[in-house]
This record gives sequence, C-alpha cells and structure tokens, in this order.
Amino acid sequence: MSNLITLVIYDISSDNLRYNVAKFLKSKGLKRIQKSAFAGPLTSGERSDVEAGLRRFAKIEPVNIQLYPLTEASFNQRVIIGVRIDYNGEEDILL
Amino acid sequence: MSNLITLVIYDISSDNLRYNVAKFLKSKGLKRIQKSAFAGPLTSGERSDVEAGLRRFAKIEPVNIQLYPLTEASFNQRVIIGVRIDYNGEEDILL
Repeated sequence: MSNLITLVIYDISSDNLRYNVAKFLKSKGLKRIQKSAFAGPLTSGERSDVEAGLRRFAKIEPVNIQLYPLTEASFNQRVIIGVRIDYNGEEDILL
Repeated sequence: MSNLITLVIYDISSDNLRYNVAKFLKSKGLKRIQKSAFAGPLTSGERSDVEAGLRRFAKIEPVNIQLYPLTEASFNQRVIIGVRIDYNGEEDILL
C-alpha cells in the first residue's frame, strides 16, 4: 500500500525529545494536526523511513509512538470537533 | 460504514475536562491507547452518539478532538514504537 495518509500520534514526556520528534516529522513532510499528532500522505518507502527515524528516538527514552496508515476515504471521513488550536504559532496545521 | 474502529485523539488543556472526556470515552466502550487517544469498534450509531457527546464537551471550553473511522485493515497495520506507558494504573490499554 502506498500513498496512504500516515497518522502519527505520540506520548512523549520530555519536552526536548517531543520537540525533536515534531521537527523530524515536519521534515518528512507531515503536518501537525494536534499537539502530539501529525499526518500526511507518504509512500510506503517514506513511511518506512519515518518509522526507522522514530525507532531511533525511542531508544533515547521511554515513549509511545503509534503510526496508522489511513486510506484517503478514512481520512476524509474524520470528524473534527472544537477549535483550531495554535501550536506555538505553527501555520501548517492540517485540518 | 459500521463497525469500523473509531480512533479518537484530543488536545484538551484542562485536566478536569480531559479526565471527563476520557471517562466518557471509556463509558462508550473505547479503550485508552495513549494519554489522549482512545480506540475501539463502534457501530455508526454508537459513533454518532460518541460524536454528539464530545460536541457537548467542546462547548465547555476550547478543545480540539478528532475522530477517525478506521477499517480493521488500517487498524491492524498500525505500528507501535516504544513502550507501553502506564496511564494512571489503567489496565485496559489496547495495544
């Protein structure tokens, strides 16, 4: 399966590591959708690359990171409730 | 689409409201998968009910809550990196 939307959600207690993971995901073309969630279309090769990078972060300290490959149909059927929260002024939130 | 796995992720800054949202999602049969994420199979009727309940919480204060209907195939292809984090002793974490 390629070009699925990859959703990444994470629980990382260290501010520094969380920041670095967010920066990494952004560098891979994913967009922030919540404080600890990114999403975007990735080929299967890109997804493997993201996964490998995240596994390296997970060696630094205990974290829980989950990746979900979503079909476009699933992604388009998402429901968003509430407000668009500003994440440190980041402009590229995907809603 | 019915009996999809519903994934719910949320950004809620108030501890009290976040606790109540978690309690609500648990009461609807969803399982905690991260600090601010729950998932589980719901019929389309149950999903509407969960959505309506979450919209009520969103009237209390600014929150961002996202619901994703996932096929079982998507859910089964999720990748989990890192450790199983203990969320206040909750035993029902779905991994």
